[in-house]
Amino acid sequence: MTRVRRIGFQHERDLARKLWELGFAVVRAPASGSKAKRVKYPDVVAILNRNVYAFEVKTTHRERTIYIPRHQVEKLVEFTKRAGGEGFIAVKIIGEGVWKLVPLTQLVETSSGNYKIEAETLSKALKLRDLLTLARGNTRIDDFLKHKTPDTQS
Amino acid sequence: MTRVRRIGFQHERDLARKLWELGFAVVRAPASGSKAKRVKYPDVVAILNRNVYAFEVKTTHRERTIYIPRHQVEKLVEFTKRAGGEGFIAVKIIGEGVWKLVPLTQLVETSSGNYKIEAETLSKALKLRDLLTLARGNTRIDDFLKHKTPDTQS
Repeated sequence: MTRVRRIGFQHERDLARKLWELGFAVVRAPASGSKAKRVKYPDVVAILNRNVYAFEVKTTHRERTIYIPRHQVEKLVEFTKRAGGEGFIAVKIIGEGVWKLVPLTQLVETSSGNYKIEAETLSKALKLRDLLTLARGNTRIDDFLKHKTPDTQS
Repeated sequence: MTRVRRIGFQHERDLARKLWELGFAVVRAPASGSKAKRVKYPDVVAILNRNVYAFEVKTTHRERTIYIPRHQVEKLVEFTKRAGGEGFIAVKIIGEGVWKLVPLTQLVETSSGNYKIEAETLSKALKLRDLLTLARGNTRIDDFLKHKTPDTQS
């Protein structure tokens, strides 16, 4: 396994551990990235009371535009369609150690057919604790994105 | 990784692939069995329309009593409690290549505090396709176990 891949798994583990500590049932996908696979796994899946959330993990050193290859988005879409869940890009702001969760509906398609998260979208994204509020049914994703500004998020 | 562990993963992959082909969203747990982990993953998790099923995988060459360490059962119980799902021991009958799914409620506690599946329970267990019927809401686990005999299962 390359150094880059190994560090990638550390971040996935960090996300899985934090979601577990919030009370979610969590599964992290296997590391066999080198093998051709017929089954497509998201990086991390978290479930609470039959609410299913699937994540692809990205990292960045600051809030900037993040690009996501089309196949990673398609993988999430297929998984969440079957599971009856919601897909997110989970972006870790390295240094801060903070996770931001961007719903697939907030992605913007690029001219090359891939996707991106705009810097402003990222700054308004959900935090891990917001996912708990969502899973408990106290609010909907739209409400978070509409009413929250970066300043009022905690 | 030892040879025994590697072969174990082949069976987990087989289960994951078959559940995916039936239409389930599937996640298989990572292979890092040697590391101390705070997060407890089932071997395989399958989800369809917000119905969550978690599995520990066992293999046997014939239908006999199967023993399961207490900690594996406890892991499944904790996961399914959080997820709002159901736990199964997935037993592969090697040679036949058939999977039998035994719900946690059918396990018998042994005098040493571990658990076992009796041979008769195993012969009457659910098959993979039964899980699809279950997930689609056409029947309940109890109905399978009550009305089905080994001869009528297919």
